[in-house]
Amino acid sequence: MIPKKVLEEKFRKFVEEDVGQGDITTLLTVPSGTIVEANVLVKESGVIAGIDEALMFLESFGLQANPLVSDGSEVKTKTAVLKITGNARTLLSIERTLLNLLSRMSGIATVTRRLVERLRKAGYETRVACTRKMAPGLAYFDKRAVMIGGGDTHRLHLDDMILVKDNHIAIVGDIKTAMKKVREAVSFSKKVEIEVSTIEEALEAAEAGVDIVMLDNFTPKQAKKTVELLKKKGLRDRVLAESSGGITEKNILEFAAAGVDIISLGEITDSVKALDMSLEIVKVRKRKS
Amino acid sequence: MIPKKVLEEKFRKFVEEDVGQGDITTLLTVPSGTIVEANVLVKESGVIAGIDEALMFLESFGLQANPLVSDGSEVKTKTAVLKITGNARTLLSIERTLLNLLSRMSGIATVTRRLVERLRKAGYETRVACTRKMAPGLAYFDKRAVMIGGGDTHRLHLDDMILVKDNHIAIVGDIKTAMKKVREAVSFSKKVEIEVSTIEEALEAAEAGVDIVMLDNFTPKQAKKTVELLKKKGLRDRVLAESSGGITEKNILEFAAAGVDIISLGEITDSVKALDMSLEIVKVRKRKS
Amino acid sequence: MIPKKVLEEKFRKFVEEDVGQGDITTLLTVPSGTIVEANVLVKESGVIAGIDEALMFLESFGLQANPLVSDGSEVKTKTAVLKITGNARTLLSIERTLLNLLSRMSGIATVTRRLVERLRKAGYETRVACTRKMAPGLAYFDKRAVMIGGGDTHRLHLDDMILVKDNHIAIVGDIKTAMKKVREAVSFSKKVEIEVSTIEEALEAAEAGVDIVMLDNFTPKQAKKTVELLKKKGLRDRVLAESSGGITEKNILEFAAAGVDIISLGEITDSVKALDMSLEIVKVRKRKS
Amino acid sequence: MIPKKVLEEKFRKFVEEDVGQGDITTLLTVPSGTIVEANVLVKESGVIAGIDEALMFLESFGLQANPLVSDGSEVKTKTAVLKITGNARTLLSIERTLLNLLSRMSGIATVTRRLVERLRKAGYETRVACTRKMAPGLAYFDKRAVMIGGGDTHRLHLDDMILVKDNHIAIVGDIKTAMKKVREAVSFSKKVEIEVSTIEEALEAAEAGVDIVMLDNFTPKQAKKTVELLKKKGLRDRVLAESSGGITEKNILEFAAAGVDIISLGEITDSVKALDMSLEIVKVRKRKS
Amino acid sequence: MIPKKVLEEKFRKFVEEDVGQGDITTLLTVPSGTIVEANVLVKESGVIAGIDEALMFLESFGLQANPLVSDGSEVKTKTAVLKITGNARTLLSIERTLLNLLSRMSGIATVTRRLVERLRKAGYETRVACTRKMAPGLAYFDKRAVMIGGGDTHRLHLDDMILVKDNHIAIVGDIKTAMKKVREAVSFSKKVEIEVSTIEEALEAAEAGVDIVMLDNFTPKQAKKTVELLKKKGLRDRVLAESSGGITEKNILEFAAAGVDIISLGEITDSVKALDMSLEIVKVRKRKS
Amino acid sequence: MIPKKVLEEKFRKFVEEDVGQGDITTLLTVPSGTIVEANVLVKESGVIAGIDEALMFLESFGLQANPLVSDGSEVKTKTAVLKITGNARTLLSIERTLLNLLSRMSGIATVTRRLVERLRKAGYETRVACTRKMAPGLAYFDKRAVMIGGGDTHRLHLDDMILVKDNHIAIVGDIKTAMKKVREAVSFSKKVEIEVSTIEEALEAAEAGVDIVMLDNFTPKQAKKTVELLKKKGLRDRVLAESSGGITEKNILEFAAAGVDIISLGEITDSVKALDMSLEIVKVRKRKS
Repeated sequence: MIPKKVLEEKFRKFVEEDVGQGDITTLLTVPSGTIVEANVLVKESGVIAGIDEALMFLESFGLQANPLVSDGSEVKTKTAVLKITGNARTLLSIERTLLNLLSRMSGIATVTRRLVERLRKAGYETRVACTRKMAPGLAYFDKRAVMIGGGDTHRLHLDDMILVKDNHIAIVGDIKTAMKKVREAVSFSKKVEIEVSTIEEALEAAEAGVDIVMLDNFTPKQAKKTVELLKKKGLRDRVLAESSGGITEKNILEFAAAGVDIISLGEITDSVKALDMSLEIVKVRKRKS
Repeated sequence: MIPKKVLEEKFRKFVEEDVGQGDITTLLTVPSGTIVEANVLVKESGVIAGIDEALMFLESFGLQANPLVSDGSEVKTKTAVLKITGNARTLLSIERTLLNLLSRMSGIATVTRRLVERLRKAGYETRVACTRKMAPGLAYFDKRAVMIGGGDTHRLHLDDMILVKDNHIAIVGDIKTAMKKVREAVSFSKKVEIEVSTIEEALEAAEAGVDIVMLDNFTPKQAKKTVELLKKKGLRDRVLAESSGGITEKNILEFAAAGVDIISLGEITDSVKALDMSLEIVKVRKRKS
Repeated sequence: MIPKKVLEEKFRKFVEEDVGQGDITTLLTVPSGTIVEANVLVKESGVIAGIDEALMFLESFGLQANPLVSDGSEVKTKTAVLKITGNARTLLSIERTLLNLLSRMSGIATVTRRLVERLRKAGYETRVACTRKMAPGLAYFDKRAVMIGGGDTHRLHLDDMILVKDNHIAIVGDIKTAMKKVREAVSFSKKVEIEVSTIEEALEAAEAGVDIVMLDNFTPKQAKKTVELLKKKGLRDRVLAESSGGITEKNILEFAAAGVDIISLGEITDSVKALDMSLEIVKVRKRKS
Repeated sequence: MIPKKVLEEKFRKFVEEDVGQGDITTLLTVPSGTIVEANVLVKESGVIAGIDEALMFLESFGLQANPLVSDGSEVKTKTAVLKITGNARTLLSIERTLLNLLSRMSGIATVTRRLVERLRKAGYETRVACTRKMAPGLAYFDKRAVMIGGGDTHRLHLDDMILVKDNHIAIVGDIKTAMKKVREAVSFSKKVEIEVSTIEEALEAAEAGVDIVMLDNFTPKQAKKTVELLKKKGLRDRVLAESSGGITEKNILEFAAAGVDIISLGEITDSVKALDMSLEIVKVRKRKS
Repeated sequence: MIPKKVLEEKFRKFVEEDVGQGDITTLLTVPSGTIVEANVLVKESGVIAGIDEALMFLESFGLQANPLVSDGSEVKTKTAVLKITGNARTLLSIERTLLNLLSRMSGIATVTRRLVERLRKAGYETRVACTRKMAPGLAYFDKRAVMIGGGDTHRLHLDDMILVKDNHIAIVGDIKTAMKKVREAVSFSKKVEIEVSTIEEALEAAEAGVDIVMLDNFTPKQAKKTVELLKKKGLRDRVLAESSGGITEKNILEFAAAGVDIISLGEITDSVKALDMSLEIVKVRKRKS
Repeated sequence: MIPKKVLEEKFRKFVEEDVGQGDITTLLTVPSGTIVEANVLVKESGVIAGIDEALMFLESFGLQANPLVSDGSEVKTKTAVLKITGNARTLLSIERTLLNLLSRMSGIATVTRRLVERLRKAGYETRVACTRKMAPGLAYFDKRAVMIGGGDTHRLHLDDMILVKDNHIAIVGDIKTAMKKVREAVSFSKKVEIEVSTIEEALEAAEAGVDIVMLDNFTPKQAKKTVELLKKKGLRDRVLAESSGGITEKNILEFAAAGVDIISLGEITDSVKALDMSLEIVKVRKRKS
């Protein structure tokens, strides 16, 4: 997690964009000094994510907030997940940003949890990972929601792992040259992954000593064959296998059955279905004098 | 549209977040000074949005870009939509951010267009509007994509229209008081909209002189009744009717049939399905010397 | 109003610019830990604006502040308008920025109020509006001061109303084409205004269905004629008339007499006379230990 | 002057504030790719300031600009001062910010020049200085305009000179103690000024070795007496005398006659009368293809 | 490397801090429009680092620059390393920032190279790594200089590797619990390192499956013993050993002889000796007209 | 000193750079809600600087801090200088940044104090000044540390004194012309210094009326000769002499003996040796419930 002081700059920018020169509706209708109590309600069942961030957000805008559920909880429709008390003008000015953040994060956590559960129920320990296919500017929130949902965050940005992809190979020429260049200069602190498009490349990469091999757009059958050949060649213990591309909620069990260690899906974070939520004012008080 | 100089600050921040201390994979594998040509390919059919923004983005990072289609074009799978030439290291460092932006905007434009077309084919001129349910920080891009898709952008932020919602009423007490407060102080430059939850409130609001009345969670039947009563009372010409809440691709025609002017859906921007795209390097050149 | 958290970033930047590497005079003369009480005094009569902003400003710098008058109050010379308690070094470091903000806002509110009163005393309900002629970067404060003075804020920025001006017409060709383009694409949430330079254009615009017609540099006589013709053609109820250009405190009543709805003056915000103020330390205390 | 790269961040923020989610009027009316030529015209006589900044501003937004007069020129009404060529959408989006900046700076230069000329014509070499009474955030532009008008910029911020004011004395106790504290720790690179309110204090300060003594709210008579006593005591050559407070265009010659070295007026920068200007499109071209 | 567009924001901030309200000396002495040619000269021998960053810096301020040596070159005193052409006022305004950056980076690369060479000459392949002991805000430049000097960058920030340190253990209780917590939740994309203070802990950590074990303040003798025991227990191939703490240029060979894989020193980046450099103007030209 | 509100933005940026997407080690190992007490310990003797800044830093991240020594104290190894209480996750996330700042500032203060003491013990009142050779972005902290160490901060940035250097002269032609240009336009609020490379130039500059003459790379002998000639010509009282270039801890007394007023050394701030420090957790508490 990022310290509140750092994160609140992101919140400030979100609100700044939305508020423009001020929430004129609220200015004209809500008397200065009005204090309200309000709840955030979910309007469909799902997994809640973003409670910690919401608390920091609200606090940094001078509002008091109490979590009614914790991050990662599965909730039913109509559950109140957060109780907020404070200045009505401020609350109404940031309501939409708050809900947008919470409903996106919860939407991500919900689908992640569903995929993970599907694997666990079928007896697989395979990891479900997201990718860097995200909404620009929201990496922290999207990755955190995946983590809360029980998924693996994969690379956080471009500097935390070596991931040689098809376009790198297209420039360098071949996997062997790419791996040689990487090995010569990579920091001991980084893992190395390479994206491959054939079984032969997968074996070549594993032999070259990568930590993870990404089986790009492999069918479950191809993935299975790859895993078997890795075992046969005594490489299986030294390398993780990640399936990526073409994976859906429907066929995810087939990929798990293929024996890969990680299954990654861009859709988790680039095609989010927001979890429906709303803010409901439950009490109106005047300024204490 | 926002001038490039202003917009490129947003692009810079998106990349800064993603790039961390640098794209170490590219640094280790791609020789300094390599020049490449690449295409952005769509991998499913849809409506393209974000081409103008992509051009500004690429230019501001020193890459040359040529649009192969224009914003709003409907394209088939495998269409190249953008041709890019320039420094390979830079291109690979910003590839993901570029695709994330384009695929989100195109996803929004695609669904917007589909909804609009559905109405037009059925002979309705009803507007399809988005709301402020968006990914935080992406308001400009989300609203612009809706516009490209043929939708209405609705409020851009909290300062460009009066929109009295349920929570304002909860504080103020009733519609009448709210409208009185608004009328006393609102700038002549703003339109006034009010959210109502019953037919009676809709009529009351129209009589109070609002520009738009938002029928919140009305069934098509209730919406129709409201429109008829507005006509009957001679108010229909003075007020626009907007249906909001509970509207889907399936029932949208029923709302149009009810005779409202605007139909708004949060899902357009808060539950985006990204349009699948990729970057394909088509030529590798060395630095000209 | 903008939430404190957002506004305080503006305050921080104002002080950062002024403070450079630190208030060296204060550092060398005022002992660390000194606590003072001080008053902000006005040194000429006028209308106070910016009290709410000053409170947020002072609070965000860790100073306690109590308003002695509220925004919009008319005060006489030597009135104390704000009482401040806190760290002397901080207070002296931000004194100038505080006074610059308050005296500018109060200067704007003072002239706005004077113009509005002049109209009201003569029995006119005509609105006095400012324009976008402002000090760059101070839009929020300038517009807010106008509102506090009783004026109309007009457009807040370039995205909250359509205002077709002479330069747009110069490019498009004529009013008709401009209006056609606007009507095809404008969001239902926006009002549409057009700037005209002849009576004929004014009528043409009104017939084209604009919400407001801006009579640019019309004499009171021309304005009156326009209003009469609008009435005659049955258009008066559907369009607001705004006079702009060449209006001064002296001739403002003539414009009001012409029957326009809005009178706008750039001078209110681009030729501000600051209301003279100073900070007076009234008590010096040491740090409590 | 500040390098363009640094300054353009200020310009970007000015435009960002004004443009919001985009100049919707221009978007709807002006075709993409339209190229225009335009002139900035002054509409009253005055001294031009801000041309260099305007050039940097326009260039940083991708517009070509040619100065028709240089900073500091005195121009008559209807003079074209700047010729601009470029993208019409961009130009119209930044027009207001450009004019706001130029007209404020020129207004400041105009009044400064007038005051300086008044002194020079009467045979005085006295300097006319501004103060830190400015519009928050505009210090660079306001100070630069004063310089172009022939005035002295005084302190640029709180770190470039020691200026002991009444509130410092109120805390420290007396001038002597204040001066002692300053002398013990002040960097050799700084000048030291002290604000005094009586002739005795002025002499005391001069004897304490300050570089400049500020005669706060002295009448011309008191100022004269002070200067004479400084001479008499052999201190005149070692100290500069600055008159500040209560100085107007009318009485400025009396202060000069008193023999002070510097006359400072807050009004120059806190009560600016903008020099009227407008942008006139002179040619419309389409995008070259 | 970070794309120029992102990096230049850092450069802008560096200059902004230094330039204040403008380089007044240059403004008063150097005529507007003066063009100069200048060289950056080193004034002592060393390894150059920062040339690429300097080129981006200079370009982003509108100056032309040609590298005379490339990053990583060893140069003798009086070598010209960079040739710059452009606006004299701009160059003089950014001269100090440019030199501060280059001389710090080159100082870091110089000491790193010296340490690496010392190991290589003695026949060791041990890596020399820096730590996160750096000047705040300069992580990118400090790490990059280490890389150019031939060192290992270690962790880039807090999110790219798990590094369990003494303070984590102090809270968690013991290594075993810490490792258990890490293993349960760590992303497959991260390496795991743990800091240990005894040989027993080192073995325990290796058995627990960490990727790297950091021997904190071990003597060379203790380090050697640890390596031997790791071999004996068959763990040496699965874990890297890093010595950290108490290492100097004098005793570094003893640590290498102990057989560790990585030697890390905070001094490389927190106790930098700048490589002496200066800017020398070699030709003065006027503006071409 | 800079107000906390302004300074904490710098702290935020420092941490933001270091923390990336979050301190993943701490997240995985330290339970949410853990409260700890910790001390900052110095691990070698020196002069402490940065305590005030550290307090503001810690407070702005929500941590309680108590200084155990004050800025400028000389401490022995193993002294606890700061006691911190608060959220363990936050503290561990900012630990490195805190120590980097404190150890750099203390390193600067330590060497400054040593140089000053050496002069004082030998009976000289000569000032020890730093220059603008600093780590980019750290000017405030570096200058402040010099001040705490008893040194003179010299110019804070490019706008607070005129300092005509060799490169200015190279462009202008000669000292006389440079001084003429400066005198014509310099604000009364600024001191004027000129860098000279011969005794003749030094005298010429003094005669031209500069406030300070910088003897660049003069030997102690040349410096002494210059001071004598200044006396002889009756100029010594009107000008300060600063020796700069080639000064070390070893030869500093010779320069003092030469009779100059100021001795400046770039090494104080560009070749800092950090004072070794660490953070030690002394108590672990759970969240109070």
